Amino acid sequence: MSVSEIDRLIQLLSKLPGLGPRSARRAVLHLMTKRDSLMTPLAEAMKEAALKVQECEICGNLDSASPCNICSNGKRDQKIICVVEHVSDLWALERAGVFSGLYHILGGTLSALDGIGPDDLNVEGLLSRVQAGGVVEVILAMNATIDGQTTAHYLTDRLEDMEMPEQTLQISRLAHGVPVGGELDYLDDGTLAAALKSRRSV
Amino acid sequence: MSVSEIDRLIQLLSKLPGLGPRSARRAVLHLMTKRDSLMTPLAEAMKEAALKVQECEICGNLDSASPCNICSNGKRDQKIICVVEHVSDLWALERAGVFSGLYHILGGTLSALDGIGPDDLNVEGLLSRVQAGGVVEVILAMNATIDGQTTAHYLTDRLEDMEMPEQTLQISRLAHGVPVGGELDYLDDGTLAAALKSRRSV
Repeated sequence: MSVSEIDRLIQLLSKLPGLGPRSARRAVLHLMTKRDSLMTPLAEAMKEAALKVQECEICGNLDSASPCNICSNGKRDQKIICVVEHVSDLWALERAGVFSGLYHILGGTLSALDGIGPDDLNVEGLLSRVQAGGVVEVILAMNATIDGQTTAHYLTDRLEDMEMPEQTLQISRLAHGVPVGGELDYLDDGTLAAALKSRRSV
Repeated sequence: MSVSEIDRLIQLLSKLPGLGPRSARRAVLHLMTKRDSLMTPLAEAMKEAALKVQECEICGNLDSASPCNICSNGKRDQKIICVVEHVSDLWALERAGVFSGLYHILGGTLSALDGIGPDDLNVEGLLSRVQAGGVVEVILAMNATIDGQTTAHYLTDRLEDMEMPEQTLQISRLAHGVPVGGELDYLDDGTLAAALKSRRSV
């Protein structure tokens, strides 16, 4: 007997991160009870997204247009580029609504262990955007992991080596410290040390 | 600005049980990287299932055909009907591969609190299947919860009240006891009492 429609759907759903076979089965039964209000719209939204969504040719963001709606938004500050590892980081910053410049998606971090070198990341794209002029600051917003910080150092070197006679480029990174709402007792030594070192007078 | 394709997909995916906004975003990014191997097939499988899958007119199982492939399978024992609460229970029994009779999906349990009475469940369907003759045993495989057992008692009464002059109907329930692989230390008192009461000589 061939695999039935339901089994195939369960099998495919269980490949999503965070869903195993059990939760995929639950999801399918839920979808079956909400056929018109959820299942059909979801199938169509997925097909639509698979067809239309693409990487932005400038920053690497995912959107139905390229350049994406951030790169093509004239109201955003074109002089600041925030470099992030993944699209999910861009989404996190956009949700916070605290940054109004442009982004650049690296596509990961340098990693000797995983054999990921500069050519596997969108480094040249960043350098040529800066080279093209008009950028006064690059914020390196990689994750505070070893790979993330290694990548930030590498990018700092590459950006400082660039020949930009007409202007100086400011390179910055995110501040380390106590998360807002965080309790000291639960923080690791590294974070506490960074928070103490960067203390500010009140 | 209208909601973009990605946002709409995240919004719909996060309505699935077990997925919140965060895991829906992760799932969408995963889908984006596996557009041809996962995203498009998943969208099509979902559309296909939404169109084709229906409730079996006999037992209430979900399948692309009605009667479903269990009811229409001549190799299965047509004389035994196993009554379960939900399709997921049928799936669990089928995965175990230990039952070769037919099923009947009640669609839930009686529940005074939630206002679910006999008319909200597929009770008449079960009675008329038994009335039609040829059934020698009904296994009441409801969950071992209070609602499940109340429902089992109710069904027992209804089945025993039926006029079936030509044959006797056997009504049974699943055994209670220590789960295979289970440790006594972690079992509740009720299960231990049931296991002790139903002990068997070796």
